[in-house]
Amino acid sequence: MISFDLITFLDILGVIAFSISGVLTSMRKQMDVFGILIIAFITAIGGGTLRDLLLDQPVVWLRDLTYAYTIIISVFIAIVFQNKLNYLRKSLFLFDTIGLGLYTVVGVEKALAADIPWLICIAFGTMSACFGGVLRDILSNEIPIIFRQEIYATACILGGLVYFALSQFSININWVFVISLSVVILLRILAVVFKISLPSVYR
Amino acid sequence: MISFDLITFLDILGVIAFSISGVLTSMRKQMDVFGILIIAFITAIGGGTLRDLLLDQPVVWLRDLTYAYTIIISVFIAIVFQNKLNYLRKSLFLFDTIGLGLYTVVGVEKALAADIPWLICIAFGTMSACFGGVLRDILSNEIPIIFRQEIYATACILGGLVYFALSQFSININWVFVISLSVVILLRILAVVFKISLPSVYR
Amino acid sequence: MISFDLITFLDILGVIAFSISGVLTSMRKQMDVFGILIIAFITAIGGGTLRDLLLDQPVVWLRDLTYAYTIIISVFIAIVFQNKLNYLRKSLFLFDTIGLGLYTVVGVEKALAADIPWLICIAFGTMSACFGGVLRDILSNEIPIIFRQEIYATACILGGLVYFALSQFSININWVFVISLSVVILLRILAVVFKISLPSVYR
Repeated sequence: MISFDLITFLDILGVIAFSISGVLTSMRKQMDVFGILIIAFITAIGGGTLRDLLLDQPVVWLRDLTYAYTIIISVFIAIVFQNKLNYLRKSLFLFDTIGLGLYTVVGVEKALAADIPWLICIAFGTMSACFGGVLRDILSNEIPIIFRQEIYATACILGGLVYFALSQFSININWVFVISLSVVILLRILAVVFKISLPSVYR
Repeated sequence: MISFDLITFLDILGVIAFSISGVLTSMRKQMDVFGILIIAFITAIGGGTLRDLLLDQPVVWLRDLTYAYTIIISVFIAIVFQNKLNYLRKSLFLFDTIGLGLYTVVGVEKALAADIPWLICIAFGTMSACFGGVLRDILSNEIPIIFRQEIYATACILGGLVYFALSQFSININWVFVISLSVVILLRILAVVFKISLPSVYR
Repeated sequence: MISFDLITFLDILGVIAFSISGVLTSMRKQMDVFGILIIAFITAIGGGTLRDLLLDQPVVWLRDLTYAYTIIISVFIAIVFQNKLNYLRKSLFLFDTIGLGLYTVVGVEKALAADIPWLICIAFGTMSACFGGVLRDILSNEIPIIFRQEIYATACILGGLVYFALSQFSININWVFVISLSVVILLRILAVVFKISLPSVYR
């Protein structure tokens, strides 16, 4: 495991980005302040909750107040500065991508540690990273956006594959962590910058 | 803990009210009798199920048939007397509010007993009380009503705060229970009677 | 328990049918290849996952790769032969019905083994069989079809009742299994062939 402090820092960036994406979606639906808070909360912790329930491990945000505080503060700031959020668009995209990468890698790592077969570990990492956003969209009565925007999840799948592949060699696990995290982040940035998407399956 | 019989009695009132709110929503969507039964069931036990899964405790309705019987009988009666339900509007509102208060307080209590930090306990109580209604609305393909009607959940949050605050003093736990339950019930009744809602966050 | 190989074979037929029903629903919503895969996956494993979470037992597809492989291959074939799927309509209906029966019976059996009261066991079997399809429809932003098409779930309820009733006598458990599985399958086929539905509850 990489140093705890760096992971915590990246995790908080991810929680901030996921919360704010929840705020933006729920405000578009004219929800009240409580609805906004709940959607932000569920977007930020949904993936990790499903991960922990399926692995039958303690649900992480129940014990660690960092998550709740980060979400509440992010929601408060996002509501106060709602007209300014557009200027932060690029930073938010970056934080969101960092969160995506981090939750993928942590999900794969937790599943591997629980002796889950590799193919399922990769599905698991992808799910941990994406499920919060899926819940956000279901609760807002929309078809989840990731089912239509495939590079989002494809970046998680490829990052998970890299993590698994590298973990088979005697490479320091910190490097495995950093490299696969970077793969997810780079792939998503490249896909957005160059507007890459997979070929359509429809004929 | 207050006497078991009173809690059981209040719990059954809550299950009746939640089931019937499920029946009303699903009938508005022209569901068949099976759909109506399922939606009633999920509305009544959804919050408690999520609570027990997250705390990794046995799911209560799996072992205790009181819930299933109460739900089945409520659904049967609600379907038979569907044209008369309007006369019961006030009683149903009262039962629903009792259920809301009871599930909040029981949720906070179970979370505190599991050594969850206080802020999460209050979120937990609110979630236990509101999640059945959220599932009811998602399954009926609507945006959950509590995300637009804030006093509903706000009453739970304030009741949870009162429970936590009082439990810090050496007050008999029965009184803590009764007082915070009453806070939720009174707040919701006052909010509905005086049409109180929180100020809008939109500018 | 009946011989493992026959159950495995029926289970795979069920997974194939459920996956392909997921593919058909998600393609109708113009999802991308990742969305299609996820919806197929969730349709196939949703019911079993809820069953295992509620019983606090290990989630079966996390350890056994048969599910993941079957789903991935089914999705691949369904996409490649998307224009030919209509010719398979009858086989798919049969596989789907086999899956429905099998998941009902396995759900009832697992719940009985966990000492759950009989009424809940039957609800449990029905839920195990139907929940994947419910999730499929929610994720596709539709009201779950089983809430409108009652013979689907009614077949599960009656099959569950037969399983429970027969298991009270000293009948070989293999026969109980086969008979109640056949009840679900026959009821659904008869309901579809003769267009049977329960009387409406609306007046």
